[in-house]
Amino acid sequence: MRPSGRLDTQLRAVTLETGVSKHAEGSCLARFGDTHVLCTASVEERVPGWMRNSGRGWVTAEYGMLPRSTHTRTNREAARGKQTGRTQEIQRLIGRSLRAVVNLEALGEIQVRIDCDVIQADGGTRTAAITGGYVALALAIRTMQGRGVIKANPLTGQVAAISCGLVDGAAVLDLDYAEDSTAQADANFVMTDSGGIVEIQGTAETEPFAEERFLVLLGLARDGITELCRLQRAALEG
Amino acid sequence: MRPSGRLDTQLRAVTLETGVSKHAEGSCLARFGDTHVLCTASVEERVPGWMRNSGRGWVTAEYGMLPRSTHTRTNREAARGKQTGRTQEIQRLIGRSLRAVVNLEALGEIQVRIDCDVIQADGGTRTAAITGGYVALALAIRTMQGRGVIKANPLTGQVAAISCGLVDGAAVLDLDYAEDSTAQADANFVMTDSGGIVEIQGTAETEPFAEERFLVLLGLARDGITELCRLQRAALEG
Amino acid sequence: MRPSGRLDTQLRAVTLETGVSKHAEGSCLARFGDTHVLCTASVEERVPGWMRNSGRGWVTAEYGMLPRSTHTRTNREAARGKQTGRTQEIQRLIGRSLRAVVNLEALGEIQVRIDCDVIQADGGTRTAAITGGYVALALAIRTMQGRGVIKANPLTGQVAAISCGLVDGAAVLDLDYAEDSTAQADANFVMTDSGGIVEIQGTAETEPFAEERFLVLLGLARDGITELCRLQRAALEG
Amino acid sequence: MRPSGRLDTQLRAVTLETGVSKHAEGSCLARFGDTHVLCTASVEERVPGWMRNSGRGWVTAEYGMLPRSTHTRTNREAARGKQTGRTQEIQRLIGRSLRAVVNLEALGEIQVRIDCDVIQADGGTRTAAITGGYVALALAIRTMQGRGVIKANPLTGQVAAISCGLVDGAAVLDLDYAEDSTAQADANFVMTDSGGIVEIQGTAETEPFAEERFLVLLGLARDGITELCRLQRAALEG
Amino acid sequence: MRPSGRLDTQLRAVTLETGVSKHAEGSCLARFGDTHVLCTASVEERVPGWMRNSGRGWVTAEYGMLPRSTHTRTNREAARGKQTGRTQEIQRLIGRSLRAVVNLEALGEIQVRIDCDVIQADGGTRTAAITGGYVALALAIRTMQGRGVIKANPLTGQVAAISCGLVDGAAVLDLDYAEDSTAQADANFVMTDSGGIVEIQGTAETEPFAEERFLVLLGLARDGITELCRLQRAALEG
Amino acid sequence: MRPSGRLDTQLRAVTLETGVSKHAEGSCLARFGDTHVLCTASVEERVPGWMRNSGRGWVTAEYGMLPRSTHTRTNREAARGKQTGRTQEIQRLIGRSLRAVVNLEALGEIQVRIDCDVIQADGGTRTAAITGGYVALALAIRTMQGRGVIKANPLTGQVAAISCGLVDGAAVLDLDYAEDSTAQADANFVMTDSGGIVEIQGTAETEPFAEERFLVLLGLARDGITELCRLQRAALEG
Repeated sequence: MRPSGRLDTQLRAVTLETGVSKHAEGSCLARFGDTHVLCTASVEERVPGWMRNSGRGWVTAEYGMLPRSTHTRTNREAARGKQTGRTQEIQRLIGRSLRAVVNLEALGEIQVRIDCDVIQADGGTRTAAITGGYVALALAIRTMQGRGVIKANPLTGQVAAISCGLVDGAAVLDLDYAEDSTAQADANFVMTDSGGIVEIQGTAETEPFAEERFLVLLGLARDGITELCRLQRAALEG
Repeated sequence: MRPSGRLDTQLRAVTLETGVSKHAEGSCLARFGDTHVLCTASVEERVPGWMRNSGRGWVTAEYGMLPRSTHTRTNREAARGKQTGRTQEIQRLIGRSLRAVVNLEALGEIQVRIDCDVIQADGGTRTAAITGGYVALALAIRTMQGRGVIKANPLTGQVAAISCGLVDGAAVLDLDYAEDSTAQADANFVMTDSGGIVEIQGTAETEPFAEERFLVLLGLARDGITELCRLQRAALEG
Repeated sequence: MRPSGRLDTQLRAVTLETGVSKHAEGSCLARFGDTHVLCTASVEERVPGWMRNSGRGWVTAEYGMLPRSTHTRTNREAARGKQTGRTQEIQRLIGRSLRAVVNLEALGEIQVRIDCDVIQADGGTRTAAITGGYVALALAIRTMQGRGVIKANPLTGQVAAISCGLVDGAAVLDLDYAEDSTAQADANFVMTDSGGIVEIQGTAETEPFAEERFLVLLGLARDGITELCRLQRAALEG
Repeated sequence: MRPSGRLDTQLRAVTLETGVSKHAEGSCLARFGDTHVLCTASVEERVPGWMRNSGRGWVTAEYGMLPRSTHTRTNREAARGKQTGRTQEIQRLIGRSLRAVVNLEALGEIQVRIDCDVIQADGGTRTAAITGGYVALALAIRTMQGRGVIKANPLTGQVAAISCGLVDGAAVLDLDYAEDSTAQADANFVMTDSGGIVEIQGTAETEPFAEERFLVLLGLARDGITELCRLQRAALEG
Repeated sequence: MRPSGRLDTQLRAVTLETGVSKHAEGSCLARFGDTHVLCTASVEERVPGWMRNSGRGWVTAEYGMLPRSTHTRTNREAARGKQTGRTQEIQRLIGRSLRAVVNLEALGEIQVRIDCDVIQADGGTRTAAITGGYVALALAIRTMQGRGVIKANPLTGQVAAISCGLVDGAAVLDLDYAEDSTAQADANFVMTDSGGIVEIQGTAETEPFAEERFLVLLGLARDGITELCRLQRAALEG
Repeated sequence: MRPSGRLDTQLRAVTLETGVSKHAEGSCLARFGDTHVLCTASVEERVPGWMRNSGRGWVTAEYGMLPRSTHTRTNREAARGKQTGRTQEIQRLIGRSLRAVVNLEALGEIQVRIDCDVIQADGGTRTAAITGGYVALALAIRTMQGRGVIKANPLTGQVAAISCGLVDGAAVLDLDYAEDSTAQADANFVMTDSGGIVEIQGTAETEPFAEERFLVLLGLARDGITELCRLQRAALEG
């Protein structure tokens, strides 16, 4: 039995609330149970210096946690004067994941910045950030199309992410903090709506694990992501 | 006529929503119109090194803005590697303001950190932060009293804050962004529920202003703060 | 009786010595009793990037304390690798104060940097910096007019600053360190020679104070600033 | 045909040269073709503060590239004043990978730091660092056993790493720079000598890839790591 | 003829004014012509962590230039967030030079920090800093002896410094800025009152120079330092 | 008798191995006994901003030590977030020394960066860096001439460096770490093949030393540098 009472194959209650920012071109508050990540997409009609005159656009992401989003307070990165390695790793992952479904030539010389800020954390913040970040990005593109700044839709598909892990010997989907902190292994999967793999990150937490176990996690993730993509479409159509 | 249609003496719609964080000992989402500031109070049962064995506690504050809380995106301070002078000024102000109503001896060797994070900005973020920060602090003290960690209530009063300014020649209460960006003068007032002055910061934005005008602003503030203190009590009793 | 034997309404011995730097376009060593602040004005015939081609100039300030200007040695900010929040707050205040009496259009695309370095501190360094900074600025403008770089005088008035406070229950003018460290309340006033308010910053140090007390401080400040403006004129004419 | 003329299943020429540092407790220069990484293991008979009195040891890693290890010169991280996100990601990976085969209780309160410095880069520096880092670690443990500081061998197995990728449609083992820069997908595998998975990181570079393709890469990696583990044993026995 | 009209063997007008700081345990304003360096000595009755319980004391130095001490304004190091290589080089030199005449065992577990701040620069700031820093140090030791904190005098001699250089083919003593910026070679000499060499730093500015030329500079320096040591004694006796 | 058994006038075994980097335009691994410094020269066909359109080129150097190049591990500067004062001092010295034999006009608007990374340290790393850095520079110039980017040879001579010191009362050449850590005085000499002095840095380590002793060190250095220049020529002709 999982601490939350969920089935091994069951996601937490997931909601993707759009239009949560008065200012951003696109926004989505992604809630995976008690994990709440606010995702905003900000459009700039210019690209970084190294891309000027390339005719291509760029999508990048930044990630942060509010100091008391965590069980005990975490030091504020702005006050410490630098981002941790973990933060940088996560924001690089979000950026790569979103770019995997964007045709940068079709985007044109435009930069979209996705800010993913964790308001409350209970495990799985990076997967909520990618899943909600996609929704914010899609809304921002819609806004830009409405303004005539973008002609063709540069999105080539949907992208979502979920974690799986081995907890007390069982392979389970969408770990919450209680599970995450005792898992034998932990893997994050980023996939498209058509089942393409964008990114896989699997880590043994307590000891190395066998190949067959990994394949079970991969199967769980596939089903979870199918469901998340369905929720994304509902949010965008809502 | 003000851009929002408010009377010169009228606050924006203010709500102080408590219990918005699963983890924090006290929390309050302060909304002053479209300005939304999430305030959490985190308790540590130890004080900074320079206060050890003094028998006294400490209350401090940190302030931040989400990058897209603003009209156009602001760079993330954690990514830039330092807090701006404005951020430091504001968080020092919040800390001083809250300490003004805390008996640090009665608090005992406990530190309370108030994090004020601007989710959405539309002018007056520092006054919302102080007003909501007080509620988060009071709730955290209540939590600590419930746990028997604090015996007597260390709060000596309530504290709240509001801005006033000269806009198009008129003295108005609680400036929003549209007013703030065109004001001739701008002042922030921090006061207690009994009318004591904690902090006054008045600045000429376009040209020096006369003493009598300043006194009008002070009068507006007094009434606004009376109303905010009433809302604080309602939130804490609710 | 004040520690220095001064009357409640009495400034310390104030001298504004000009021409103290061989290199600067304008300079003034402001002495308020044992507080000595060296103010230099440096002119650059270009403005920051965000102002290019605006036809307007800029005046900005930086503030620092020599490590042993204080009673016990303070760590050197350059060695620590960052300026404290207090330093940033003060230098922003000095810059705003001086810009309040400059017509930036009349200045033209020129930047004047005012460096205020505390050689010896005994309370009131920021007010000495503003008062002396104005003299350095006025001298630099005179130098630039002499060189034909500036045509019309961009100064619209004089600006000076003084602190007042409640010490042992009495409202007193121009606090020295002994008073500052025991004051119940402390306020800094920045005003023009015609009595216009540029900036007011009042802070309760030990407990909130009443509005009437604040008005007494304001009255003291008005008289003190009248005297400081007279000394500025004497220094500039000398 | 691969640019290097290798078979798809063929490693580059790999050498693991030991004893290359006069000072380090263990050292190994890992060469994977033209990629050369110097790995040193430094032993400290104390652990970081947060582990004191836990009875457990720690293994950590740092990674760096000499500025001209790369095709065109890369800026020196020490001069820039911070490590890139990529560097932090890699050194965190190396540390986790090595700890996966160390019994930290058996190690006792000792810290081993593995420094992996890229002398020359031609793709696959992180996998060479893990493979060579294991050898340096094993040698340092042997040194400590020789000195009687460690009683029982804390190593629970061997760990090595290799990259695989999809290049021009083919699944190939051990990508060099020419392949890495044109790959459709790229994955790094960290495994033990008994086939346990320690870490998997797979990334789509140009477009999402199918699950079956990923399984082919996994198979290639398994064989490559078997060979690397054989070379590690030879180096340690040599 | 030198720009200043001095003889090749002639120092600038040198004054060493003591007692210039109300707060410091020892202070000296060293003026070498238009180069003015304020030197303060601050005593702490504890040593850095790595020296605790060694029974020995420490003398260290910091150096800084006020932004407008120079012909054109130099950026403030505190604002830039780091000290330049030049600053670090100079403060390390000052520290080493002063420690050369202090018996650290006799000093006891006391640290003296010498702050050398350039108020106005016209060449030779490091030599003025060493020469004046010695006077501040000697005064601080005298103060500590007066308080009974130090028993025996830990000074083993006097130390002073001077620059020499090859300018327009001539070997000259004590270069000012006009000479320094056109010199073919430039050397700084730090010596004791008994003629012992503490530090020599000679640099070819435009092209390598011959050994015999260097020996001429060494001779000039010897005489200059004899005179500076005489001025130090006069200042300390004055 | 020296610890290494060398004569007082004897260099360590010195080898200057060229072509050690696959990527750099010029490279040299300089070994002075157990001190090994990898020197690479990287050419950029543009100069720093402040030199644009001057028609002149630039040569600069950076220096670093691998963390475990030293007897006990040294913290990695990239991880600490800044270079030490010692590092900056050394890299400034290397850059000045190499520029002393380059005609920057003849070089044209090209920048050469010399990276000197200490692989293993046993005293005298800066002198090995200068001596090997010259070889890397000369090779890079040869490469650029081969590519037709440089027409005339901008080198005006050779430059090499060596340390001398007073150890146990004797003047000895080329100190190793054992000698360096017990020396009474230590001096580094940088000279050209024609005997011109480029830089002299002499420091008393334990107590001031006499002028005659310094002249003995200078004589030792002259002979050592003659030998190093011969080895440079052999390496470049080899």
